[in-house]
Amino acid sequence: MLARSAVEQAVREGAELVVLPECFNSPYATDQFPVYAEPIPPVGTTADAAAAQADASPSTAMLCSAAREHGIYLVGGSIPERDADSGAVYNCCVVADPSGSVVLKHRKMHLFDIDVPGGITFKESDTLTAGDAVSTFDFAPCKCTVGVAICYDIRFPELAMLMRAQGAQVMLYPGAFNMTTGPPHWELLQRARALDNQCYVAAVSPARNPESSYQAWGHTTLVSPWGDVVATTEHAPAVVVADVDLTKVAEIRQNIPVSLQKRHDVYSLDQK
Amino acid sequence: MLARSAVEQAVREGAELVVLPECFNSPYATDQFPVYAEPIPPVGTTADAAAAQADASPSTAMLCSAAREHGIYLVGGSIPERDADSGAVYNCCVVADPSGSVVLKHRKMHLFDIDVPGGITFKESDTLTAGDAVSTFDFAPCKCTVGVAICYDIRFPELAMLMRAQGAQVMLYPGAFNMTTGPPHWELLQRARALDNQCYVAAVSPARNPESSYQAWGHTTLVSPWGDVVATTEHAPAVVVADVDLTKVAEIRQNIPVSLQKRHDVYSLDQK
Repeated sequence: MLARSAVEQAVREGAELVVLPECFNSPYATDQFPVYAEPIPPVGTTADAAAAQADASPSTAMLCSAAREHGIYLVGGSIPERDADSGAVYNCCVVADPSGSVVLKHRKMHLFDIDVPGGITFKESDTLTAGDAVSTFDFAPCKCTVGVAICYDIRFPELAMLMRAQGAQVMLYPGAFNMTTGPPHWELLQRARALDNQCYVAAVSPARNPESSYQAWGHTTLVSPWGDVVATTEHAPAVVVADVDLTKVAEIRQNIPVSLQKRHDVYSLDQK
Repeated sequence: MLARSAVEQAVREGAELVVLPECFNSPYATDQFPVYAEPIPPVGTTADAAAAQADASPSTAMLCSAAREHGIYLVGGSIPERDADSGAVYNCCVVADPSGSVVLKHRKMHLFDIDVPGGITFKESDTLTAGDAVSTFDFAPCKCTVGVAICYDIRFPELAMLMRAQGAQVMLYPGAFNMTTGPPHWELLQRARALDNQCYVAAVSPARNPESSYQAWGHTTLVSPWGDVVATTEHAPAVVVADVDLTKVAEIRQNIPVSLQKRHDVYSLDQK
């Protein structure tokens, strides 16, 4: 399924915010990230400016164009990015607003370096550099703050708590878990982040591709701030459309006011 | 089931560390905490010294005596404690070692004040004071660090992360969730703490008592550092015996080295 046609399908089904999966425009392989890397233009770039740079970053141009065409927020999963200055390659999520402008770039903060013998071995740091920003944007239609992080970032409660501290009510994790960690951890991590931070959490995966060297778990899912699964799918290409109810966020935060009950006199999580 | 006989049963089934549930010696009710509160003697108190103070704190005397008799570590769920100096009442977990000495007191750090309309309303802070210490002890037989916190403490990832920072490989949460938050959150929170910190997590609940004003969810459970349920039970009185495999802790921490991948240059969780 082409990314742009999937966006169109989601919009037809009523979506106002669409999230693509991690590495939607490239293979998920360390030796391919530099090959597919694009110089993504900075926050503030308009759709017209992105279109003018389409030769350099066709993916950003497509995202900005599609966001403007449909009048939606489009969270561009992730794209391998080559920093124009340093040449370093990042796993980057670009967000375009309904005017088609780039409103956020999140560079994956925690690189996926794991080694489960007999299961999965992967080392993003072979070719990728980690970002260092906590990323949120405002979804204007309902004054909602949306946090964005990528895949392995979800294993780090600190990042989710910092997004929450920036006001996040929804957290989006484009991600491609695998056949080893997907079954035991994909949904559990989403539910953990959702319940602990009393946020909606969506994790958006590529479909499984039998011909790929990396078998994605799939299972794009939306979890509520109560920790229950609102919508999910299997591993085939799919468009998952579901509602986020911000009154539920407010209600749960009022009923079980953990954010007000943190023991700031005993501990503090600080962003440097 | 009397607490002491439950300890004996667990020992007969091979337990070397036994955990009792929250408020095992008192009703779980704010107006009853001061009534049942005992002046728990300090860390370092021997079994003989605890026995000599049995009139003041019969629960501590029993715990120390049973630990010594069986040569086990006995984690005394929790007891309402009246501080001898201030008169403040705490929800306190006492741990006795195989010599019968008190080796740890954990005072619940996050008081259970919630209000879910139509579900559960409770306000521990009406009569309880919160503790402010992160609590771990050494389980000497296998050089294992064990963290202890109580019930609502489990909703706070920070406390678990601080126990982990103190070296915890196992975390114990005596707790009494209820019929509203128990079904959706009891197991999920344990699995979240276990997976995020790559620790075994046991949550130990009183059985359900139809005559009680507070209906406990029950479901005492042990979760592995991979996030899966190792052992559990329903809501009737039960003794759950299961093995903790510390090689699994080490293996998982090596394979998915999240503790080494924290971005200390971006964030830090500090204990004050």
